[in-house]
Amino acid sequence: MRATAIAQPNIALIKYWGKRDSDRNLPAVGSLSVTLGSIGTRTTVEFDAALDSDRVHINEQEVESVDRRVEKCLDRFREKAAIAHKAVVTTANDFPTGAGLASSASGFAALVVAADRALDLNLGEDELVDIARTGSGSAPRSLYGGFVLLENDSDDGIRCGSVLGPETWPWSIIIAVTSEAPKKVSSTDGMELSRTTSPYFSRWVETHDADLRAAVASIEDRDFEKLGELAERNCLKMHAVAMTSRPPLLYWSGATLECAQNIRELRKSGVPVFFSIDAGPQLKAFCLPDNSEEVRDSLESVPGVLRVISSELGEGARIVE
Amino acid sequence: MRATAIAQPNIALIKYWGKRDSDRNLPAVGSLSVTLGSIGTRTTVEFDAALDSDRVHINEQEVESVDRRVEKCLDRFREKAAIAHKAVVTTANDFPTGAGLASSASGFAALVVAADRALDLNLGEDELVDIARTGSGSAPRSLYGGFVLLENDSDDGIRCGSVLGPETWPWSIIIAVTSEAPKKVSSTDGMELSRTTSPYFSRWVETHDADLRAAVASIEDRDFEKLGELAERNCLKMHAVAMTSRPPLLYWSGATLECAQNIRELRKSGVPVFFSIDAGPQLKAFCLPDNSEEVRDSLESVPGVLRVISSELGEGARIVE
Repeated sequence: MRATAIAQPNIALIKYWGKRDSDRNLPAVGSLSVTLGSIGTRTTVEFDAALDSDRVHINEQEVESVDRRVEKCLDRFREKAAIAHKAVVTTANDFPTGAGLASSASGFAALVVAADRALDLNLGEDELVDIARTGSGSAPRSLYGGFVLLENDSDDGIRCGSVLGPETWPWSIIIAVTSEAPKKVSSTDGMELSRTTSPYFSRWVETHDADLRAAVASIEDRDFEKLGELAERNCLKMHAVAMTSRPPLLYWSGATLECAQNIRELRKSGVPVFFSIDAGPQLKAFCLPDNSEEVRDSLESVPGVLRVISSELGEGARIVE
Repeated sequence: MRATAIAQPNIALIKYWGKRDSDRNLPAVGSLSVTLGSIGTRTTVEFDAALDSDRVHINEQEVESVDRRVEKCLDRFREKAAIAHKAVVTTANDFPTGAGLASSASGFAALVVAADRALDLNLGEDELVDIARTGSGSAPRSLYGGFVLLENDSDDGIRCGSVLGPETWPWSIIIAVTSEAPKKVSSTDGMELSRTTSPYFSRWVETHDADLRAAVASIEDRDFEKLGELAERNCLKMHAVAMTSRPPLLYWSGATLECAQNIRELRKSGVPVFFSIDAGPQLKAFCLPDNSEEVRDSLESVPGVLRVISSELGEGARIVE
């Protein structure tokens, strides 16, 4: 009744922002991400008939009120296994939690893989994707490695899978951490604010599929420059929607923007590199392995950068114990 | 045949971004601005039959190739006066030129007022507005003082005038200068890029008139808080369009954004203040005179702020010699 899984955060190149159905946590738009290789979440799930409620420990601290989304995920497994046992979930991230580094994605991906094994359910991929989605809209992407596509399937669900494995086209991802503080507005709240108040949200949704198609084609063509251009612009389209919400969501700090300008300058000087930013102040730079040291050095020199994390592409969520 | 005028830059609270007719320099949207009182452009125009071409001196340097927009403005006056004399235009700004501080607005406003007097034409306001507009879309606003509204009038032109004089509702404007370098992409080029490539441009235009109406109503009600909220959001809507252009226009530096966050924090602490940013890295803060010292001190403390300029509201363009 106990298993441990590891899952790794993913970073969307073509962003998920906004839901078409909040109750069922269905996205308004598809997304395309890369799964990281060097930072991760390790989660142990243990079902126990002796417990009277679900318990969650995050980074060695028991949380006072368990996230409703965690209970909902566990309920799905209990239903499948036809048991009522509550569970202890023990999870730890080796990177800042809740600061725009996709800790909820890797967290829920590790949770579903561990819970599935703990109960020996061996659910199919589609079911794991569906349960992970109810926890966090970007969690299904962390179930897979390399370049991952998540798409709306029908009114009822999504489909998700690898476009290209992590070994086929090696990349380096350099994350410039500019703040370790948790973000003030959660992605879920931010998305809902954007959907209901940004004058640009409708155009974001209308123009999104073209970005997604073009990005998938660039991966198939191994066209790094084209993909970078698409990803950088899609990121700015997302932040443009966020910042025109009411009240405005400005996820960037000065250091985030200086990093973005730094990457643009580096690209102008001939280095193939591009950036992306999520709902937090960290900047993520993408390059090919040959340029990774140069990009790392460049971001480390930007005032306000607290530390830099380097990563290759990684595998999907997996059982470790 | 010689006259000197002073005009002052204006800062739009509801922004002009994008043209509906590039040839005739007609804006896609109206705008609402405040004219500054403490920084300005001083321009002398002298028509001289002995000259074989128009000459322009900016900040004590003769420019090598005279801006076609200056020649076009002068042509309009020559036509009115039925003369062919070329002119020497000598102009100086006591603030950074071409760095998002509306030097073209005050420059063309001073030019038309000086040229009108130099030729003793005494053209009406509507004609001066129309000639100023051909130079720079925001120049007509610097012809007037205080709170100034510029609107599309018909297919053929615009109308412009004061909503409220500078004495009626005193304000303080604090400009945080974060770079003295001229901007890399001119407003004219940036606007055209946004019109033709930003997926959000159509929504910017469609939702703009509501912002303009609400802002004028807030001025009539002397509702500083409401006007600030409208202005800050309209500014972010403009930059959202700019940054989603292809290639993206990111006019902000890290320091610009830190200043914006600083103003938001100051407001949260109870100080009535808001910000605006134009097509350059300076941040403009607006408050009532009682809070001006506090706002100034706060912006001066932001790393990357080179200097801070304080201003009250000012008068429209006027003859000084």
